Amino acid sequence: MDFFLYFCRNVKNMAETNHLVIMAGGVGSRFWPVSTPKKPKQFIDILGTGSSLLQLTVKRFEKVCDIEHVWVVTSARYKELVREQLPLLPESNILLEPCMRNTAPCIAYAAWKIKKRDAAANIIVSPADHIVTDVEEFRRVMEEGLFFTAGEDRILTVGMRPSRPETGYGYIKVKENTGEGEIREVEGFKEKPDRQTAEEYLRAGGYLWNSGIFVWNVATIEKAFRKEQPEIACIFDELEKDFYTPGEQEAVNRRFPECKNISIDYAVMEHVRNIYVFPADFGWSDLGTWGSLHELSEKDTDRNAVVGEGVRLVECKDCVVRVSPDKPMVLQGLEGYIVAEHNGVFLICKAEEEQRIKEFSSRLQE
Amino acid sequence: MDFFLYFCRNVKNMAETNHLVIMAGGVGSRFWPVSTPKKPKQFIDILGTGSSLLQLTVKRFEKVCDIEHVWVVTSARYKELVREQLPLLPESNILLEPCMRNTAPCIAYAAWKIKKRDAAANIIVSPADHIVTDVEEFRRVMEEGLFFTAGEDRILTVGMRPSRPETGYGYIKVKENTGEGEIREVEGFKEKPDRQTAEEYLRAGGYLWNSGIFVWNVATIEKAFRKEQPEIACIFDELEKDFYTPGEQEAVNRRFPECKNISIDYAVMEHVRNIYVFPADFGWSDLGTWGSLHELSEKDTDRNAVVGEGVRLVECKDCVVRVSPDKPMVLQGLEGYIVAEHNGVFLICKAEEEQRIKEFSSRLQE
Repeated sequence: MDFFLYFCRNVKNMAETNHLVIMAGGVGSRFWPVSTPKKPKQFIDILGTGSSLLQLTVKRFEKVCDIEHVWVVTSARYKELVREQLPLLPESNILLEPCMRNTAPCIAYAAWKIKKRDAAANIIVSPADHIVTDVEEFRRVMEEGLFFTAGEDRILTVGMRPSRPETGYGYIKVKENTGEGEIREVEGFKEKPDRQTAEEYLRAGGYLWNSGIFVWNVATIEKAFRKEQPEIACIFDELEKDFYTPGEQEAVNRRFPECKNISIDYAVMEHVRNIYVFPADFGWSDLGTWGSLHELSEKDTDRNAVVGEGVRLVECKDCVVRVSPDKPMVLQGLEGYIVAEHNGVFLICKAEEEQRIKEFSSRLQE
Repeated sequence: MDFFLYFCRNVKNMAETNHLVIMAGGVGSRFWPVSTPKKPKQFIDILGTGSSLLQLTVKRFEKVCDIEHVWVVTSARYKELVREQLPLLPESNILLEPCMRNTAPCIAYAAWKIKKRDAAANIIVSPADHIVTDVEEFRRVMEEGLFFTAGEDRILTVGMRPSRPETGYGYIKVKENTGEGEIREVEGFKEKPDRQTAEEYLRAGGYLWNSGIFVWNVATIEKAFRKEQPEIACIFDELEKDFYTPGEQEAVNRRFPECKNISIDYAVMEHVRNIYVFPADFGWSDLGTWGSLHELSEKDTDRNAVVGEGVRLVECKDCVVRVSPDKPMVLQGLEGYIVAEHNGVFLICKAEEEQRIKEFSSRLQE
């Protein structure tokens, strides 16, 4: 491909057919009490930077995709939160799920809706609650990815080069010596491994963390749904006439619950053959746990990560503290604890017990 | 003494000449953040019973002394707190110190003021921030004590039978085979001992904790001040003409600061000879530390003492938790910690470090 063609396609990608679908329907129970069903973590300034994770996600893409082409799929109950946090987002770009049906129906809804307006759409699908520290590299990868799928029948995933035997992520096995440029074919997807398996992956090489970010053009994903999930495709075919009409929400509320509750991985990824991975490294975390927040945050010399202007630590080590700015607080003698507060609800627990946070939160209902 | 005389004196004590002086000027820095200079522990419902320590103190004496004869000596800044918490207390019974001068000037002020109205006054002096669990026995001891000092030139202290080698209290050495009834002469006062000395006291017997509660008639304490602290006596002699006049506060503000800064123990107790002790046991604590609160409080099977309706403990041991009722909170995996909150200010520290609480509180000013 000569430079002129590359240039034209690339400019076209950025200006007209690029779309971003942000999946923002999660309830984030592992970050309780900072994240609650009423206001889950994607809507929270969890890093203390002044922006919610959703706002950071949109900002990260602002040179890749115009705000008019950003679509946020979320639960009906979070509509006002999205409007508040993304005031420039057109209201009709907020897609409201009447109930949770995992990622496949969410992605299909967005794809069918975008398709009705822009049959040439080239789409990135991204979770709302991830963290990226090297935004410039991230943008480069996204632009290369869009270039790779524009007008081509290819599904692209983004795989992160692993830095540790993480058991909290799924893995993508790369097919070596395939693909073009930096991109490789996918040999297979692996579910979250146990510790030993994760260590083997790391030793063997060729395994990447599955970031949950996908790139494809709308025709490709439509075709994949028609082949692998015809019932879901059928529901959105029937809903299409209502899109962009005053009756859309009512129709979606009626039909969406009929969709199978299934992730995009099970529904599509594991069946299709034209699937690729972009091995990348842009300081990524799915920020799924307090531990990952601790890892990503700036730490003091005793490895404490603190968000909260009023917090003073005395003889504390390896703690992650995340409280409101107006909470004056002295913590002394804590090692390896999570101290979290949100809206006046407090959690203090050992960091090693964080997988039990859902249990802890349920104690307050007793 | 025959029964009729006993009866008459006792009835007289309860009805007419009994006075109670409550010393409520402390700043309670060891209970930070629950106790603050703005609202020290005597004004706080520290046990979560619905009454402040000051209110509990007044209530404890309600069958011993009429509210018209209760005198609260405190700092000028706490006047409104006292009025709020003791609405039945006559306003002129609140004596306001313009500055802190320890207990001797405080007691002299109250004595001279009471004397002007009631030369036969029989006075109990009590701190505002102590805890008594057996109020009936307490009342019996107070009534016996008042009976012992009414019209007699005797100074009575109240000594608590020690249950452990406490290093946080002063001790009173009893002169065996002296006194009358349950009351003994005092052989001497001992300052807060080190651990080894405290253990020796406990082993030897005849040593009691100094409760800081005193009983005397007003003539006795006046005479003691005139002999041992003539400068202080002189200041209040000169102030006496202003008592119960609109100019009282201004005059006190001018002269009170001239008083020596000295405790009643150093100023009077250690010099006088007519001094007695009532060995008693009514579940007493000066509630000077979080540790003593922990000891006094009801505890769960893991020895946690909790005040705070919203608190849930998971795998915690030997903790003392004292937070506002409206603070939902899950604590997991804490052993031997103090968790305290007041007005949104939090402290979490190891119980064994509680003597450093003043240091911790100063960290918030940094």
